[in-house]
Amino acid sequence: MNNSNCMVAQSGGPTCAINASLAGVVSGIKNSSVYEKCYGAVNGILGILNEQYTDLTDTITDDAALCRLMTTPAMYLGSCRHRLADYKDDDSSYVFIFNQFAKLGIRAFFYIGGNDSMDTVDKLSDYARKINSDIRIIGIPKTVDNDLYMTDHTPGFGSAAKYIATSLLEIAHDTFIYAVKSVTIVEIMGRDAGWLTAASALARNDYNAAPHFIYLPETAFCKEQFLHDVKEKLKTVDNVIVAVSEGIRDENQEYITASSAAVDQFGHKQLSGAGKALEILVKQELGVKVRSVEINVLQRCAAHMLSKTDIDESFSLGKHAVSLAEEGVTASMVMLERVSDSPYAVTYSHADIRSIANQAKMIPAEWIHEDGNDVTAELTDYLRPLILGEVTISYKDGIPAYMPFLHRD
Amino acid sequence: MNNSNCMVAQSGGPTCAINASLAGVVSGIKNSSVYEKCYGAVNGILGILNEQYTDLTDTITDDAALCRLMTTPAMYLGSCRHRLADYKDDDSSYVFIFNQFAKLGIRAFFYIGGNDSMDTVDKLSDYARKINSDIRIIGIPKTVDNDLYMTDHTPGFGSAAKYIATSLLEIAHDTFIYAVKSVTIVEIMGRDAGWLTAASALARNDYNAAPHFIYLPETAFCKEQFLHDVKEKLKTVDNVIVAVSEGIRDENQEYITASSAAVDQFGHKQLSGAGKALEILVKQELGVKVRSVEINVLQRCAAHMLSKTDIDESFSLGKHAVSLAEEGVTASMVMLERVSDSPYAVTYSHADIRSIANQAKMIPAEWIHEDGNDVTAELTDYLRPLILGEVTISYKDGIPAYMPFLHRD
Repeated sequence: MNNSNCMVAQSGGPTCAINASLAGVVSGIKNSSVYEKCYGAVNGILGILNEQYTDLTDTITDDAALCRLMTTPAMYLGSCRHRLADYKDDDSSYVFIFNQFAKLGIRAFFYIGGNDSMDTVDKLSDYARKINSDIRIIGIPKTVDNDLYMTDHTPGFGSAAKYIATSLLEIAHDTFIYAVKSVTIVEIMGRDAGWLTAASALARNDYNAAPHFIYLPETAFCKEQFLHDVKEKLKTVDNVIVAVSEGIRDENQEYITASSAAVDQFGHKQLSGAGKALEILVKQELGVKVRSVEINVLQRCAAHMLSKTDIDESFSLGKHAVSLAEEGVTASMVMLERVSDSPYAVTYSHADIRSIANQAKMIPAEWIHEDGNDVTAELTDYLRPLILGEVTISYKDGIPAYMPFLHRD
Repeated sequence: MNNSNCMVAQSGGPTCAINASLAGVVSGIKNSSVYEKCYGAVNGILGILNEQYTDLTDTITDDAALCRLMTTPAMYLGSCRHRLADYKDDDSSYVFIFNQFAKLGIRAFFYIGGNDSMDTVDKLSDYARKINSDIRIIGIPKTVDNDLYMTDHTPGFGSAAKYIATSLLEIAHDTFIYAVKSVTIVEIMGRDAGWLTAASALARNDYNAAPHFIYLPETAFCKEQFLHDVKEKLKTVDNVIVAVSEGIRDENQEYITASSAAVDQFGHKQLSGAGKALEILVKQELGVKVRSVEINVLQRCAAHMLSKTDIDESFSLGKHAVSLAEEGVTASMVMLERVSDSPYAVTYSHADIRSIANQAKMIPAEWIHEDGNDVTAELTDYLRPLILGEVTISYKDGIPAYMPFLHRD
């Protein structure tokens, strides 16, 4: 077949596994008897609209480069947050994109991303159907939030979960040293779904019971219950550690936040996060030593601590997407199905993109403790396999040797 | 010799290397022909006052336990922040402590800690001199802040510096993905000395120029100059990253902070950190996308990322302290002298404790860029060897297998 090329792009927020899926796509194409070049669109779908491409078949020339790409955080190709208009309202972007595909001999397009990116896959698939294009359009999931439907879990989540569990254990060691009462609030990402916050439970082991409480966005947060929980625990434990999602809300769906008017040097109204709000609350109501820690972006980009399970699966999903395209599958998202818990095992499958796009998966109520302040053993059993295994990365001059930034001009 | 035992304790704030020095002391004593048991006082000097001890010779029985102890963050023996009164005012604590030493057959006491702990070593040494006790009193330095005099650098600093440099590089990857102008402010520990913040410069490599600016507590912070710096940089760079010490102050020595009155749900006056203050300033004055990240306690307890140089040196310092005690040295702190930069090499020596206690070492002015917004190559040359080398730690169930907490009751 002449001019049978592929294009791949990345979109949405960063994870530590999104480049592993990219590496899987590149590897799949390199080993394909059907496809030739692999173009990377720079900054997601915008790269096509701006005609900004890089030839990945040229850049990722050997196993060393592939390996380095696999363990580099965030998006090697850059990202975007761009929602395509409905083609029924305005098809100009679609016409442009499919003209680009024709011009570059693109036979398959792979889009690695989260909920919004699957919406793009859905729309492009729809348009391809309309114009009778046989270009394969396949989505490859990623999101630290683990909130995509159909797939058992999402690439990128396991590494973030491992980082969070490890950090919580380290914070427990850090707070344990003083024989004085203290409370530490750790704020974890997840505006709507509490999966990452729940992963803090994996820090518990045969000597560490922290975090002592876990508050998720799936359960209405009650200030009085929280203060009661902490106060009671302080009777038996010196250093209470609480994991809290950034997205906790009260029974009226109001975010828990200390809205504060900045005075002094700079006058600007600010919203503090949930962790800071609870820190203030504890200080005020319980009068005990208290600190809040926001793990922040590090939980999604700390590629020096990867879950081997996560990276292996993310890579395999990328390769699987290429195989499916070769077989003629389109308008789909590749996904993971758990076939066994013990030993943990998954198969790689796919689902119609329309059943996935624009939906978010929350933690089921039966996996949350009835008091709303912890998770159940079923949830930690589900989570544990996802953080297993370590990946050794290379260092240069004392810091990780990641894949250099792609020049974007 | 009969009943020739030692005691060791840990004090001050946590680091990732303070247990490596403890392991060095234990190893030194196990291999000593002079000393027998090694008692650990629980929660620093308070452990002696409360008669809370653990027999480390019994606990750390093999190389596996020693290894695990070496790579466990914070203080295995617990810590305290307790300043002994001047014995001239009240010698009751001193009498009690030296009675405990006599009772347990203690011939040498090792105190691992920072500035305040060296004050304790100084006071105990003074008292020992007064009562003609020949018990050796030796301090072993630690502090993530690297602000102790005499020693070339402090144990614990190198691992924290490695974590900071790595995190900055990862944040650079995380912010680089969007082709939109943004500013990221990373707040790093160091209230008075800027060594940890300076270590962010080690994130720079052949493709990454971030952090683009570094602001230290050693230089008066000027709001206008900062805004000018960032504004100019945004003309040529999309994603500007700024490293800032928590302790930056203006020309009147006022901390840079957005003092804010919490209203809404909880009414309490709060001080935000320097990072948050600069975030607000950038948002207000430059109107660009901005985020602040506080690395927080993780920089001092993330033992999953250790500098091998740091851990090896910290262990050796512990062993060296035991050798010195055997030789009759007392009233001293062990320390590191750099004898060569290239190749990097240190020797282990010691100094009179009176020349060290209660002083803090700042970054010299000639190692700070004249514009006050960066460090010089001399400083990064000094820092680089301290973060070199990686330590492989064990994992269990996906999280690090650290030394379990010591029971304190």
